[in-house]
Amino acid sequence: MEHIRGNVIVGQSGGPTAVINSSLVGVFKTAKDRGAKTVYGMRHGIQGLLEEKYVDLSDHIQTSLDIDLLKRTPSAFLGSCRYKLPEADKDNGVYKKIFSILKKLDIEFFFYIGGNDSMDTIRKLSDYALEIGSSIRFIGVPKTIDNDLDITDHTPGFGSAAKYIGSITKEVIRDGLVFDQNMVTIIEIMGRNAGWLTGASALAKCEDCEGPDLIYLPEIPFDVESFIKKVEELHKVKKSIIVAISEGIRTPDGKYISELTDTVEFIDAFGHKALSGSAKYLANMIGAKFGWKTRAIELNTLQRSASHLVSRVDITEAYQVGGAAVKAAFEGLTGQMVILKRVSDDPYICTTDTYDVHKIANVEKKVPREWINETGDFVTQEYLNYVKPLIQAELTPIMVDGLPRHLTLNDKNLKNI
Amino acid sequence: MEHIRGNVIVGQSGGPTAVINSSLVGVFKTAKDRGAKTVYGMRHGIQGLLEEKYVDLSDHIQTSLDIDLLKRTPSAFLGSCRYKLPEADKDNGVYKKIFSILKKLDIEFFFYIGGNDSMDTIRKLSDYALEIGSSIRFIGVPKTIDNDLDITDHTPGFGSAAKYIGSITKEVIRDGLVFDQNMVTIIEIMGRNAGWLTGASALAKCEDCEGPDLIYLPEIPFDVESFIKKVEELHKVKKSIIVAISEGIRTPDGKYISELTDTVEFIDAFGHKALSGSAKYLANMIGAKFGWKTRAIELNTLQRSASHLVSRVDITEAYQVGGAAVKAAFEGLTGQMVILKRVSDDPYICTTDTYDVHKIANVEKKVPREWINETGDFVTQEYLNYVKPLIQAELTPIMVDGLPRHLTLNDKNLKNI
Repeated sequence: MEHIRGNVIVGQSGGPTAVINSSLVGVFKTAKDRGAKTVYGMRHGIQGLLEEKYVDLSDHIQTSLDIDLLKRTPSAFLGSCRYKLPEADKDNGVYKKIFSILKKLDIEFFFYIGGNDSMDTIRKLSDYALEIGSSIRFIGVPKTIDNDLDITDHTPGFGSAAKYIGSITKEVIRDGLVFDQNMVTIIEIMGRNAGWLTGASALAKCEDCEGPDLIYLPEIPFDVESFIKKVEELHKVKKSIIVAISEGIRTPDGKYISELTDTVEFIDAFGHKALSGSAKYLANMIGAKFGWKTRAIELNTLQRSASHLVSRVDITEAYQVGGAAVKAAFEGLTGQMVILKRVSDDPYICTTDTYDVHKIANVEKKVPREWINETGDFVTQEYLNYVKPLIQAELTPIMVDGLPRHLTLNDKNLKNI
Repeated sequence: MEHIRGNVIVGQSGGPTAVINSSLVGVFKTAKDRGAKTVYGMRHGIQGLLEEKYVDLSDHIQTSLDIDLLKRTPSAFLGSCRYKLPEADKDNGVYKKIFSILKKLDIEFFFYIGGNDSMDTIRKLSDYALEIGSSIRFIGVPKTIDNDLDITDHTPGFGSAAKYIGSITKEVIRDGLVFDQNMVTIIEIMGRNAGWLTGASALAKCEDCEGPDLIYLPEIPFDVESFIKKVEELHKVKKSIIVAISEGIRTPDGKYISELTDTVEFIDAFGHKALSGSAKYLANMIGAKFGWKTRAIELNTLQRSASHLVSRVDITEAYQVGGAAVKAAFEGLTGQMVILKRVSDDPYICTTDTYDVHKIANVEKKVPREWINETGDFVTQEYLNYVKPLIQAELTPIMVDGLPRHLTLNDKNLKNI
C-alpha cells in the first residue's frame, strides 16, 4: 500500500440522497485509517471550493456516534451544488484557481460524490491535471437516486429511494381503499428521463398488496387518450385505481405532461426544467371527465431525503464506494469512478471496481425496453429481480425525543471565516 | 363485571389514521377476552352495515402475529365511510333498518371508531335506541389525526401524524439546505379548521435543526401581503426559508388560498371542500415576485397513513381507548365517547374516561389563541409541551422482503356474499 504524504479533499454534488453522507463517511474514515493528515470537505462542492469554503472534517466528525448519526443524516452534509465546469480549452481561469487552492491545501487526492454532472467534473479535472502535470488524483464516487449512471450496476441512493417509494406506495394504496368510492390516485415520482424510480412503485405488488395498476416510465411516450381508456377499463373491475407516473413522461410529440399546464417552471444551471404538476394535470382531467374523486400525490423531495426509511444494503454500499474510492486513489488511479458490480441476484452478491470516468460522464442509463412490459404500462419481473436485493433490510434511525436525529455541520468552523 | 350474552359490532368511520386499527384490535381483543361470542366488523362503517356488509373479525384476526400486523396496518382495515345519518324524527327508515340488522346479528354492544361526524352517528343511534327501548349500547372510540375532538385531551391518530410531520419537516429542511441558493419551501399540512397538525411542524425545531421559519394555522386569518413581507425580511438573513401552512388557511375575508387558484375542487358528503394547492399558489407567487427557487410540498395522505413511522405512545393509547370502550359498554354505559385525560405533562401520564357524546359530536376543538404566538406565525412553548409527549417512542414496522408488512382483509369472507 502506497503512503500518503499530503491531504485529501471530498465534495458532494448534485441532488441529495438519503445515503450520500454514508459515502462521505466511507471516504473520511478510510482516508484517515490510511494515514491522511487532513480530510477537507468542500462546502457546496466545487462551487464552494472556488470561494475557498471548506472544512476540516475532523472538526465535525469526532466520535463514533457522529459517524453513526452522519450515516443517518439525509441530504448532503457538506452542502451540494449544480456547477458545471467550462471546457478547459475555452476557459482555464477556473481550473487555475481550483488547482492553486488544492496546492495551498496540499491536496493529493480529490473525491467527488455525485451523478452524471459530477462525473463530468471529475473527468475535466483529471484531464486538466494530466495536462499540467499535476499528481493530484481525482476519483468519482457514484451517487444518485435516479440510478441513471452507466457501467455501474446501480448507484448508491437508488435502493433507499426505491424502498421508500415501494413502502409509501403500499401505504397510499391502502389509504385509497378506505372509502367505498370511485377514486383514481396518481403518484408522481422523480426521474426525468429514466424510469428506475417510477418502476420501484411495482415493489408494492406483494403478498399483502395489489400494487399499482399502471406504471408509466419516461422511456415510453405517454399517450393521454390511451391512458384515459385504460383507466376507464380498469374502473369496470375495481373502484380504487392507483397509477404511478414519472415526472418526466412526455406525449409522443415530446411535450412534458406538466407543460400542458400553466405551472410556473424553473430551469436549473444544467438546463433541466424543474417539473411538477403532471399528476395533478392528469388527476384533474380524469375528475372532470368521469366525476370520480381523484388525488395527485407528488412524492417530491421526500424520496431523496427520507433517511428515516433507508435500505441497509444501500447505506452499506454507499459506505463501501466511498472507501473503495480512497483505496483506488492510494493505488495510483485517477480519472476513475467507483462502480458496483453485481455478481449474482440470489443470493445477492455485489463488489466494487473502478472504471474510466470518460465513459461514464454525461451518459444517462435508462430502463431497458425489455424490462418494461409490451403495453408500456408496467415493469417486468426482470426489473423486480434487479431492484429487490437493493431495498433489503433497514438501518434504524437514532430517535431522540421522538424524532430522527441528524448530524449538523456547524458553519462556525468554516475554515475561511 | 356484567356478562355479555350476545354479540358485538365495531365500525371505522371518517378519514384514516396510522393507528386506527390499533383501536380496532383494542375493541376486538377486549370484547373477546370478556366473553363476546362474535365480534363483527362493519365493512365501510354504517354505510356498509346498511348493505349488510360485515365480517366476523375472528375469521380475519386469528393469530398474535395478525394482531401485531394489524396494529401496524395503516388506513381503516374494515374500510370507512363518510355517511351522515338523517335526524331520526325526519327519516326513521334508516334507523329501522339498522336496528333490524343489529337485532338479526344479536348485537348487544356497538362501537364506532371515528371523529366528529362519527360521534354524531353514536349520538343519534344511542338516542334512537333509548327512544325505542332497545338495550343495545353505543360507545364512541375517538380517532382523528386532526385532533379536533372536544373534551378529550387529544385524539389517537394525532400523535403519530404529529411525529410524522415533525420528522418529515426535519428532512425537508435539511434537503432545503443542500444548495447554496435562495429558496422558499412551503409545506402544506392537513387540518381544515384546526391547526393542531400544522403546529406539529414546530417539533422540527430542536438541537439539530432550526425548524420552520413561519407556521400558519387556520385559526388566524392569513394575510398574503404580510406573509410576502415576512419572507422578504427573512431572506435578508437566510437563504433557505421553510414555511408550514395549513391546507385551510383563509384570507381575512374568508377565502381559502386554494380558492384563489383554478384547481378543480370536490365537495364531500359533509359539504367539506377537498382543498389542495395553497402551497403551490403561494410558492408560485413568491417565485414570480422574487425570482427565487420555490417548492411546494403537500404532505397529503401520507400524514394519515404513514404506519412506518408511528408514535408508540399513540398506538398504545389507540389500543387503550378501544379496550376502554368495551369496558364502558360492559359497565352499562351508552351514548358515551371514551376520552383521554392527561394527568401530567412531565412525566407524561394519561388515563381514559368516558363522556357524554352529545357534548362532543359536531364540536370542533381548535388550537387556543394563546398557544399561537402574538404575530400569528408560530406556535408557543405551551403547544410544544402539549404535543411532545404524544410523539414519543416508536413501534418498529414488521419488515418483510424490504417493505412494511400489513394485514389485509380478504373480502371472500364477507358474511353476506
